[in-house]
Amino acid sequence: MTYAINFEANNAKFQKEGFPGKQPLPPSKHVTIVSCMDARIDVHKALGVGIGEAHLIQNAGGRSAEALRSVVISQQLLGTKEVHVIHHTDCGMLTFSNADIRSKIEKDLGTSAANVAGAIDFLPFADLDKSVREDVKFLKDSPLVLDVPIHGWVYQIEDGKIRKVK
Amino acid sequence: MTYAINFEANNAKFQKEGFPGKQPLPPSKHVTIVSCMDARIDVHKALGVGIGEAHLIQNAGGRSAEALRSVVISQQLLGTKEVHVIHHTDCGMLTFSNADIRSKIEKDLGTSAANVAGAIDFLPFADLDKSVREDVKFLKDSPLVLDVPIHGWVYQIEDGKIRKVK
Repeated sequence: MTYAINFEANNAKFQKEGFPGKQPLPPSKHVTIVSCMDARIDVHKALGVGIGEAHLIQNAGGRSAEALRSVVISQQLLGTKEVHVIHHTDCGMLTFSNADIRSKIEKDLGTSAANVAGAIDFLPFADLDKSVREDVKFLKDSPLVLDVPIHGWVYQIEDGKIRKVK
Repeated sequence: MTYAINFEANNAKFQKEGFPGKQPLPPSKHVTIVSCMDARIDVHKALGVGIGEAHLIQNAGGRSAEALRSVVISQQLLGTKEVHVIHHTDCGMLTFSNADIRSKIEKDLGTSAANVAGAIDFLPFADLDKSVREDVKFLKDSPLVLDVPIHGWVYQIEDGKIRKVK
C-alpha cells in the first residue's frame, strides 16, 4: 500500500531519532490549545510545545463550539488549567458561505447529500479578530468550562508570528 | 502576561529558525488526518508531515463523527483526496463513561452544568481497534464524504510506532 505521505518510513525514523519515551497521560503544562486544521500550521513547532505538554484540538477554523466536548474532557479528566484559542490569517473559513459549500456538495455528491449538508453549519466567519473574540467568549460563557484563563491569538501565515487578540 | 508555555519567546525563535515562508492554502500532499488531542502525539513529527502538506483535525479520541464538518471542508474547498484516522494506545477515551464525566461535572460545576452535559455524548470507547474501524466506516458511509482512500491506524504511545488497522 502506498500513501501520499510515506508515514511508515517517516515513522520508523521518528522511532529511532525523535521518540522521547513514554510520557504520562495528563499534559505536563496543563494547557489546552484550540487551533485550525490548516496545513500550514504546526502548533508544536510554531509555539514551542513539547511532546506531552498540551492537548491540541484542531478543526476547520479552530472553532470552540465544536471543540467544547474535548475541552471539557481535557479539564475534567486530565486537569488542564489554561486554554488558548488560535485562529490565523488567510484562513479558508474566510472564503465561503454555507450556501457556497452546499452548492459545491450538490454538484459533487448530488441532491440528497446537499440536503444532508443543509442541516450543517460549516461555521465560516467574515472577521478574523472577531472570530477569535467570539470563540474565547463562547468558552468563558459555557457552564461546562472551568473558570480558568482563556486567551485568544492570531497566527500570521505570512511570517509565522503570533499576536494576542484583545 | 505569563503563560504555562512561553508561546511568545518560543514563537520568536520559530520565526527566525523554523518558519519555511508562506505556503499555499491547499495541502500540497492532498491529505487529511484525523487524530486525538492527546498531549503525547505530535503528528507532524511522528508521521513526518511537513508544514503545508496535510490538514490535521484533532479532538478527544480522534472521533470522525465530530470531524465530519472539517473533512467535508477539506475535501470540497481544498481538494484533499486521502483520509487517515489515527487513534492511540493508553487513550483517555478508554478510561471513562458518559456517566462518569457527568458526575465529575456535577461535583465541579453544579447540577445545572451536569444537566447541560447530560445532552452531550462524550464519545468514549472500550475497544481501541474497533473504534478505529468504526470511525473509518463512519466516513466511508457518509453521503458527504468523497469516494477516496480512507485508512485507519493506531499510534503506540509506548514506543512511538504506528500500525495499520485492518
